[in-house]
Amino acid sequence: MPETAARLRRYSYLGPAGTFTEAALKQVPEAAGMDWAPVANIGEALDDVTSGVSDAAMIAIENSIDGGVTVAQDALATVPGLRIVGEYLVPVNFVLVVRPGVRLADIRVIAAHPVAYGQCRAWLDDQVPRHQHLPSTSNVQAVVDLLASDPDSAASVDAAIAPPGIEDHYPVEVLASHLADNPDAETRFVLVSRTAAVGEPTGADKTSVVAELPNDRAGALLELLEQFATRGVNLTLLASRPIGDRMGRYRFVIDAEGHVKEERVADALLGVKRFSPRLVFLGSYPRADRVAATTQKVYGDDVFRDARDWLRGVLDGSPDAED
Amino acid sequence: MPETAARLRRYSYLGPAGTFTEAALKQVPEAAGMDWAPVANIGEALDDVTSGVSDAAMIAIENSIDGGVTVAQDALATVPGLRIVGEYLVPVNFVLVVRPGVRLADIRVIAAHPVAYGQCRAWLDDQVPRHQHLPSTSNVQAVVDLLASDPDSAASVDAAIAPPGIEDHYPVEVLASHLADNPDAETRFVLVSRTAAVGEPTGADKTSVVAELPNDRAGALLELLEQFATRGVNLTLLASRPIGDRMGRYRFVIDAEGHVKEERVADALLGVKRFSPRLVFLGSYPRADRVAATTQKVYGDDVFRDARDWLRGVLDGSPDAED
Amino acid sequence: MPETAARLRRYSYLGPAGTFTEAALKQVPEAAGMDWAPVANIGEALDDVTSGVSDAAMIAIENSIDGGVTVAQDALATVPGLRIVGEYLVPVNFVLVVRPGVRLADIRVIAAHPVAYGQCRAWLDDQVPRHQHLPSTSNVQAVVDLLASDPDSAASVDAAIAPPGIEDHYPVEVLASHLADNPDAETRFVLVSRTAAVGEPTGADKTSVVAELPNDRAGALLELLEQFATRGVNLTLLASRPIGDRMGRYRFVIDAEGHVKEERVADALLGVKRFSPRLVFLGSYPRADRVAATTQKVYGDDVFRDARDWLRGVLDGSPDAED
Amino acid sequence: MPETAARLRRYSYLGPAGTFTEAALKQVPEAAGMDWAPVANIGEALDDVTSGVSDAAMIAIENSIDGGVTVAQDALATVPGLRIVGEYLVPVNFVLVVRPGVRLADIRVIAAHPVAYGQCRAWLDDQVPRHQHLPSTSNVQAVVDLLASDPDSAASVDAAIAPPGIEDHYPVEVLASHLADNPDAETRFVLVSRTAAVGEPTGADKTSVVAELPNDRAGALLELLEQFATRGVNLTLLASRPIGDRMGRYRFVIDAEGHVKEERVADALLGVKRFSPRLVFLGSYPRADRVAATTQKVYGDDVFRDARDWLRGVLDGSPDAED
Repeated sequence: MPETAARLRRYSYLGPAGTFTEAALKQVPEAAGMDWAPVANIGEALDDVTSGVSDAAMIAIENSIDGGVTVAQDALATVPGLRIVGEYLVPVNFVLVVRPGVRLADIRVIAAHPVAYGQCRAWLDDQVPRHQHLPSTSNVQAVVDLLASDPDSAASVDAAIAPPGIEDHYPVEVLASHLADNPDAETRFVLVSRTAAVGEPTGADKTSVVAELPNDRAGALLELLEQFATRGVNLTLLASRPIGDRMGRYRFVIDAEGHVKEERVADALLGVKRFSPRLVFLGSYPRADRVAATTQKVYGDDVFRDARDWLRGVLDGSPDAED
Repeated sequence: MPETAARLRRYSYLGPAGTFTEAALKQVPEAAGMDWAPVANIGEALDDVTSGVSDAAMIAIENSIDGGVTVAQDALATVPGLRIVGEYLVPVNFVLVVRPGVRLADIRVIAAHPVAYGQCRAWLDDQVPRHQHLPSTSNVQAVVDLLASDPDSAASVDAAIAPPGIEDHYPVEVLASHLADNPDAETRFVLVSRTAAVGEPTGADKTSVVAELPNDRAGALLELLEQFATRGVNLTLLASRPIGDRMGRYRFVIDAEGHVKEERVADALLGVKRFSPRLVFLGSYPRADRVAATTQKVYGDDVFRDARDWLRGVLDGSPDAED
Repeated sequence: MPETAARLRRYSYLGPAGTFTEAALKQVPEAAGMDWAPVANIGEALDDVTSGVSDAAMIAIENSIDGGVTVAQDALATVPGLRIVGEYLVPVNFVLVVRPGVRLADIRVIAAHPVAYGQCRAWLDDQVPRHQHLPSTSNVQAVVDLLASDPDSAASVDAAIAPPGIEDHYPVEVLASHLADNPDAETRFVLVSRTAAVGEPTGADKTSVVAELPNDRAGALLELLEQFATRGVNLTLLASRPIGDRMGRYRFVIDAEGHVKEERVADALLGVKRFSPRLVFLGSYPRADRVAATTQKVYGDDVFRDARDWLRGVLDGSPDAED
Repeated sequence: MPETAARLRRYSYLGPAGTFTEAALKQVPEAAGMDWAPVANIGEALDDVTSGVSDAAMIAIENSIDGGVTVAQDALATVPGLRIVGEYLVPVNFVLVVRPGVRLADIRVIAAHPVAYGQCRAWLDDQVPRHQHLPSTSNVQAVVDLLASDPDSAASVDAAIAPPGIEDHYPVEVLASHLADNPDAETRFVLVSRTAAVGEPTGADKTSVVAELPNDRAGALLELLEQFATRGVNLTLLASRPIGDRMGRYRFVIDAEGHVKEERVADALLGVKRFSPRLVFLGSYPRADRVAATTQKVYGDDVFRDARDWLRGVLDGSPDAED
């Protein structure tokens, strides 16, 4: 390696190649041609970022069927030094693959990531009613598990549930496609970097925070939501996660429409910050769906500026300040 | 008078001498020894201020029995260039006065300011059941009206309701004291000056504004009140007054605990300003009762500053900003 | 009068004939041909109802310029046994009347009810700049005061402000019309009877109550308003009146869209009743403007009934109750 | 079997014997001596109930570290005919077990239910840093997997994470105890039966529902929470779960303090029912912690009854109804 060679930017993702996470990473223009590092789980991916081994990590954060990826939510809530910088949506569907020559009727044990398995349950119950499920650690790992097993042993794995296109990477045959019960399922991924200055708004952004409540009254959650509502900030996600110290104590993962550099969002966060014993800012970033926030005129940046000008005039005693 | 003599500060008040308004003005240390100008009504008093004839005007704003002095509320809501700088409470009670020698049994027509008359109604109905009421423009003017009338004419005024101590100023005899139905009644006065820079908080202040709502939904008023509630700002007064253009449209006269130089009050006013099509700031001034605002710690100035510091760190990407 | 004659229904109103209150009473079809009793003030009118002397009383409750008629609001809040059964709007304008032959230039003293005087101030300042104001107890009484005064005395009254049509009742000449500053001003009247069973909804009704708050927190008023807002009930009036025991304690006079026999209104009142230390129901009655309440479908009577049916099924354990 | 033998009540639970779910079932006095049926997963347990094979099923619903058991939440939200009738808390801790004679240094592959694995991560990273994880379907199944594997094969399982006491059921040796990172962790279980009439309140109850929102505005969730807050009903859980049709649409799993036969809870549910396009009632049942609901006096059953009596009087026109 020549001395002057700049290190390529490095992206960690749940591997091996062929996973939905890799498909999400392919949506990132800046990642093209860079160093892509497959890792075994989300914790490892984020560790790579905090330790500086990687510049960013692509992690799944939510599935439209299964809900939040709790390990990702909890890691973002508790690991310092991370910032979400992008959001990506990947359609999720599955194929059933086997060693070449194996037929549907031969299948007894199926390797599958538990989330994938859950999404294909109806198809499997109908087509392979007597199967057994062997859990794998990723959708591609299921194929690795299939190929690693001894077809002649009593414990052989006969098939795997895998992402479409897997046959380009592994010597398997696709027996069936479109296994998922819901053909419109998709998974939401976020690209996470080390904490850095916030980027500029694009007009279609999202802001993510994690907030703890001052106490366990129902009123506290209401007060939290009012901080957003009174500034016209819509929420796209409100998920509760246990703080972990004892049953019944939760923190809330919140995705809000808009960017922290927009006045209404900044003002809402200030309100939450004053109120919450712990508020973690996860990032303001372009939305995957590119849908612009639906904001009423009264919550525009100019309205916030005008109000501050008015207040300044009030304090100074400017002649026309009171109106 | 030497050429170089500075003009004394001039205070307009509802006269003549002896009114409750004069009693309020006597509570103002800075007014002692200055030029006191009795005027005929609140409009005249405020005109004196806006035109520069007087430096300040003392006006009644609310009575604990009769409620808001609507002419004062409406003037403050619509006349530009005014600012409330102080608040004063005057206990209100009344005596019945007559020309010397007149007895209770002789009384037929009683001169009284309508507000005073209303407060003494029970006593009058009991003691002078067949009386007639002649409205006067002030409590002292009632005595003037009494003395001006011809005792021998059919239209003679026989008695007047007046403030205690009136007998020191006019040749009348006190027939009865403590006429008011409620012995604890008091009137709230405000000292009004021209618009000037806001003074410093004393820790026991009040802030007055007049706000119009964006439309006539019940929800709009709720949203207005939430601007105060979500910042922990208590209201001591919420009065509705017609805007005057058509039935059913109101502006709201609001007294809030605290001072506009306190963060929570300023922030609440910013919220109202963004929301309201018209917001008039009337002033932040020491409360007459000197009761400190009851504020929770989470609404303290330092909490607002900390939140802003936090937001700055978030935007800069400071390492520990997210927590 | 034959022995068997039934007593005519009797209506008390602020007289004498020719007042705006009489104009309101003329809008009541049932009152036509009945016994109309002019009285001197609102208290007397309501006394007639509670004592049984009259069957109903027409009283002014609000003016679009001057706001609530506080004596009426306070009487309804505190006198037991009354119920509002109708609402009426009367356009309010004024004429300037004189003894025949008197010219504008001759006018020095003008008799006027203080509210009327306030509404004509701009015209008077422009056309009769040097006039003096003599307060009268009603708009028609001003004419009586004019005619009773001695034109030759120093204290003669020269003109009166009166309702249009006054020349049909009294020997006066109209010198000018349309004196009021706001040509669209109107006064709202209510017809008050003794407490009786509530009538049926018309689809365009109003419900009036007076509520005290559990304490003086800003939050209490917010909570009161939420009782209406969470049931989709809009308010057309929220006025505060002092309870009277000490400064800063208020009751709220509330007009809500809809009828107590509509589920959403009844449910909101139940919520307020549970919450308020004192709630006075003043009546549900047809709106003067006949504007139907703007109610979303989710607040319809059928939705309330369906919810109760659902709850009954939940309690019974009906098979399809949970959905 | 004699003809007259009554069938024993049958309880399904996640087996085999020794699981935390079995520990929960042991807390049910009525289940003692009955027929206990171990099943492979939560879906099977609930199927047993809906099909009538079992009378009740004990299922895990939440862990204080991992949060909601989403498969249980989703099943309760979508499978008709179920009702929660009891709640139980089981302290959760773990031991590391091996085949007799195996030492810590020998361990390479560890079988563990993923939730258990997550809770012991810190201990494992410290004590067995190079281990691999094999996911199992239950904490006891991990031991079964350990014992079923061939110790001499390359894919042998060397250890399992299991509940304390497992050594009484299986021929294993406990190498280490108290593996869980949080020694106070506990899992919440619910006992589920077929839909039946709701039981009586005990004074320390919980009510569970699943609600969908009318649309995706932030305001809709706020409105949902207000239905509880305005009746003084505290929430102990608010969890969002995807409806599943598309990204960003959620239903909310709600646990509220109190019993549907308490007025405030019933009234809140009526409010939610009117508002929500789909509301599933899951049950009112005694709380595991036996903590009585913290209710203010104004939300007591008597206050609801008094309000209804008042409303009845208002409608009838009873003399003292308005106060």
